[in-house]
Amino acid sequence: METTGLAAAASRQAHVDAVLDRFFTLATTRAAALGPEYERLWRELELNTRGGKRFRPRMVMGAYQALGGTDLEAAAYVGAAFELLHTALIVHDDVIDRDFVRRGAPNISGAYRDRASAEGSTDAVAEHRGLTAAILAGDLALVNASRLIDRSGVEDVVRARLLEVMDEAIFASAAGELIDVDYSSTQEVPRVDDILTMERLKTAVYSFECPLQAGAILAGASDEVVQTLADFGRDIGIAYQIVDDVLGVFGVETETGKTTIGDLREGKRTVLISYATTAPGWPDVEGLVGKADLTEEEAGRVRELLTASGARSFADGLARYYGNRALARLAEPHIPPALRAELHPVADAVLGRAK
Amino acid sequence: METTGLAAAASRQAHVDAVLDRFFTLATTRAAALGPEYERLWRELELNTRGGKRFRPRMVMGAYQALGGTDLEAAAYVGAAFELLHTALIVHDDVIDRDFVRRGAPNISGAYRDRASAEGSTDAVAEHRGLTAAILAGDLALVNASRLIDRSGVEDVVRARLLEVMDEAIFASAAGELIDVDYSSTQEVPRVDDILTMERLKTAVYSFECPLQAGAILAGASDEVVQTLADFGRDIGIAYQIVDDVLGVFGVETETGKTTIGDLREGKRTVLISYATTAPGWPDVEGLVGKADLTEEEAGRVRELLTASGARSFADGLARYYGNRALARLAEPHIPPALRAELHPVADAVLGRAK
Repeated sequence: METTGLAAAASRQAHVDAVLDRFFTLATTRAAALGPEYERLWRELELNTRGGKRFRPRMVMGAYQALGGTDLEAAAYVGAAFELLHTALIVHDDVIDRDFVRRGAPNISGAYRDRASAEGSTDAVAEHRGLTAAILAGDLALVNASRLIDRSGVEDVVRARLLEVMDEAIFASAAGELIDVDYSSTQEVPRVDDILTMERLKTAVYSFECPLQAGAILAGASDEVVQTLADFGRDIGIAYQIVDDVLGVFGVETETGKTTIGDLREGKRTVLISYATTAPGWPDVEGLVGKADLTEEEAGRVRELLTASGARSFADGLARYYGNRALARLAEPHIPPALRAELHPVADAVLGRAK
Repeated sequence: METTGLAAAASRQAHVDAVLDRFFTLATTRAAALGPEYERLWRELELNTRGGKRFRPRMVMGAYQALGGTDLEAAAYVGAAFELLHTALIVHDDVIDRDFVRRGAPNISGAYRDRASAEGSTDAVAEHRGLTAAILAGDLALVNASRLIDRSGVEDVVRARLLEVMDEAIFASAAGELIDVDYSSTQEVPRVDDILTMERLKTAVYSFECPLQAGAILAGASDEVVQTLADFGRDIGIAYQIVDDVLGVFGVETETGKTTIGDLREGKRTVLISYATTAPGWPDVEGLVGKADLTEEEAGRVRELLTASGARSFADGLARYYGNRALARLAEPHIPPALRAELHPVADAVLGRAK
């Protein structure tokens, strides 16, 4: 390789950012012709897209380049498409969860709500104003994810296959979101494998499986390689979700950027909680999981049970199991060394977050 | 023409219904693999699509056939795409308006809310359950509108142009919805022309302008014809909206299927209301427009002012003006007689609803 990994990553990110810049510049100009409010919605959407880590584009472009792809421009369009899909999904997820803040800053709902409040609206009207803006912004991001693939300039057969992959990503994540909301609204805690399925559908499919597949398809890889990447993405995506749930209770806030009490207050259904329901001490803490005003002391009691019951070490072990399965996929003989070199660090990073 | 207008219409509708049937059968089967809850969401979406009048497909296919198009299958895909877009927009519009009923029956939010209630959820949880399902169902309908164009089997250049038209429809309707919510959340009543712009963006573009353009593009019509159809669609669409607003206050419920008090209770910003704000008697009824528990007697007082102030006759006259402008477009020499014969009744029907 002529460039180091770091330089390649920077170059990929620059390409993706350039595609998104152009997309938003065009859309915002077009929106301005329909009025300042609409222009503002597009600016908010752009702000919310900018905050992303560009993780999904990295999956697309990493697979693409490691498989010999050289049309960085086309790959950047496909990468940008998945970034926009990510924005769409978190924007609507926040609407569904009635969250007005993401990572410490107002999200689209929050920005619109706060402005309406400042202009004298009642709380109810201001919240409604915020949620409305976010529903519309999410809609626009969602349809334009497919539009970016459409505009990637790739040949017809490849474009059609990429659109199928994007469709699969959207289809799966809607199912995952629906099941997630079902799980949160019933008393019963689902089984570990049902939670894994839900988390895979909601997040792993569109974050790992589909972007990796898209990169491979764009590079003209064999069906065998595309399938192995899907399998790798599935396993590492599941591992990622398990680790994420553990960090949501046991993480270090300064490292993860998320609190370790939010998931417990919300009563989020995770592998940890599902496992713990089978432990003898569960009845003592059951009432605390999902308690909106859970105190730090109470959270400590839940954490103790999660540790003492073996839930935490079970979850860590399960994450390692899926992570190792993912790594084993990379060892298959039809996976070229460059692809292995590209994805091994991804798996390591996921497992490195686990203790 | 070999078939009468009625037979042609029935044949078109049958083609569109067949496309939608296949689409939903496939999607529902695919959803079932991800669990019964997801399958149910798709069934609800199908139910909500079935209720439609297939008005937008009629625009697509009417323009297409009148311009000599013979591939009814391809036209049906494009027509079905606009029908699905219509479903997506009303589903999300209902979420935004927090409506759980449409045309007397529970919509998606309503069906999910009612089931959650029956299963013992609190009102707040049940409503949230309903709105969540509707956000996701609307998302799925929205992305699949473009997918249906993609799957129409038309050649590349035409497909790309049709996707641009679909994109324009989505782009405009989001702007219109945003502006509509802005207007409803401020005290000030916008000017007549601002209301017309909002109504055009929210409804007329995706219901008239874009479907007609799509049909013409698919038929390989000249740019001149495509443009004239867009202009016709714009004018007749605006006329339709004005008539609709008048019927929303002065209509006959048994004919229109909508109450004549809902718009007043909601404080809907219409041409009627905007005009009336300039009348001397306005301060007397101002407090009644937007009064959630408006009585029939109070509604009567508002109607009286709308009549006495000339708002009603102004609105009727404005609708006729736009309707006549639309008809004049059809008289342009490059519009073939068959197209004129197809669209004249559409304009007549819109104007026939006006008094």
